Amino acid sequence: MSIEVSAFRWVPPFAQGYVRDLRVRWALEEAALAYQAALVDQQACASAGYRQWQPFGQVPAYRDGEVELFESGAIVLHIAAKSEALAPADEAGRARTTAWVIAALNSIEPYAQMLIHFKESRVQAESLLNRRLEPLSAWLDGKDYLEGRFTAGDLMMTAVLRELVDSGTLARFPVLDAYRKRCEARPAFGRALEAQMQVFRDNAPAQP
Amino acid sequence: MSIEVSAFRWVPPFAQGYVRDLRVRWALEEAALAYQAALVDQQACASAGYRQWQPFGQVPAYRDGEVELFESGAIVLHIAAKSEALAPADEAGRARTTAWVIAALNSIEPYAQMLIHFKESRVQAESLLNRRLEPLSAWLDGKDYLEGRFTAGDLMMTAVLRELVDSGTLARFPVLDAYRKRCEARPAFGRALEAQMQVFRDNAPAQP
Repeated sequence: MSIEVSAFRWVPPFAQGYVRDLRVRWALEEAALAYQAALVDQQACASAGYRQWQPFGQVPAYRDGEVELFESGAIVLHIAAKSEALAPADEAGRARTTAWVIAALNSIEPYAQMLIHFKESRVQAESLLNRRLEPLSAWLDGKDYLEGRFTAGDLMMTAVLRELVDSGTLARFPVLDAYRKRCEARPAFGRALEAQMQVFRDNAPAQP
Repeated sequence: MSIEVSAFRWVPPFAQGYVRDLRVRWALEEAALAYQAALVDQQACASAGYRQWQPFGQVPAYRDGEVELFESGAIVLHIAAKSEALAPADEAGRARTTAWVIAALNSIEPYAQMLIHFKESRVQAESLLNRRLEPLSAWLDGKDYLEGRFTAGDLMMTAVLRELVDSGTLARFPVLDAYRKRCEARPAFGRALEAQMQVFRDNAPAQP
């Protein structure tokens, strides 16, 4: 089965290592599934053909022999359904993995994005975000992972928490910062990050 | 199998009809699954016991004989996995249903929430939101549903689009507004909304 994941050919340095194909690359590395990156630029993303694959004109989009998909969360869940490296085999465990993937995407990330987009309303954005990070920190206190073992939920939560390092927010939550570092220390994360960065090095614009 | 869904006993009128247990009630109505509402108030939500069920102290939380869950998106996906009323039986169709549920929660709702939370930055918030609503409208133009038939993806997308009616945003996207109305016209939605509203009528604070 041939797996293809769309990814940007190049992005400015501040976004390198954070583009969302990283989440899918990480999941595929954890599941030990080989894949090809389908490199695109902004112009290709705006094309009608690409929007049939990714309706919002973003990355990543995904296809294998069976499905054609978009949304990093849905792709990671699809991969998790194939691999016990990313989710327990039993229904209850799989459902909880899904819960944490969606908690990362809908209970944490929207508030992280508010902090990034609305810098002029930082106090308000931080207050909204803290109301989510505090219970998450309480849940993780004394635990290595959200549900006793690494799952796709930890993968997605870490991918979201990484967005908060530069703002200094995560430094105020040592439990969450240690958890992020624990997950980022996984060899599969390192391979995924290196794969994304290598593409950017290979396609860096010529220096003037 | 007995299904239990947590829901607020009462909320102020502006939130009535929008609390997120509505999404789960709607999914259960589409799937023709009976359930019990476990009514809670803010004090109960803050308790350590409730946070074992819902780590962020919110509603809805869900349990049946097999799983204990939180996040409306994860609960709706769990119900969709049990019922062809909410997702096709084949893997490719199920994966696309998941993609649209997550698109609603991570590509649309965060930007809808920015508009609601950052009224003083309305121009910026509208610009971010329009960049998502325009391609969604293009995708739905000429279609009744996101994927040719009603799925959990339409349920979640409609639940998110409803949040934009009061701001006037949806009136600028006639394709999306017609789609929302088409989905809200489903009898299962009407039953779910009435079930949430009945609880609020039953538990309204005494008038002074």
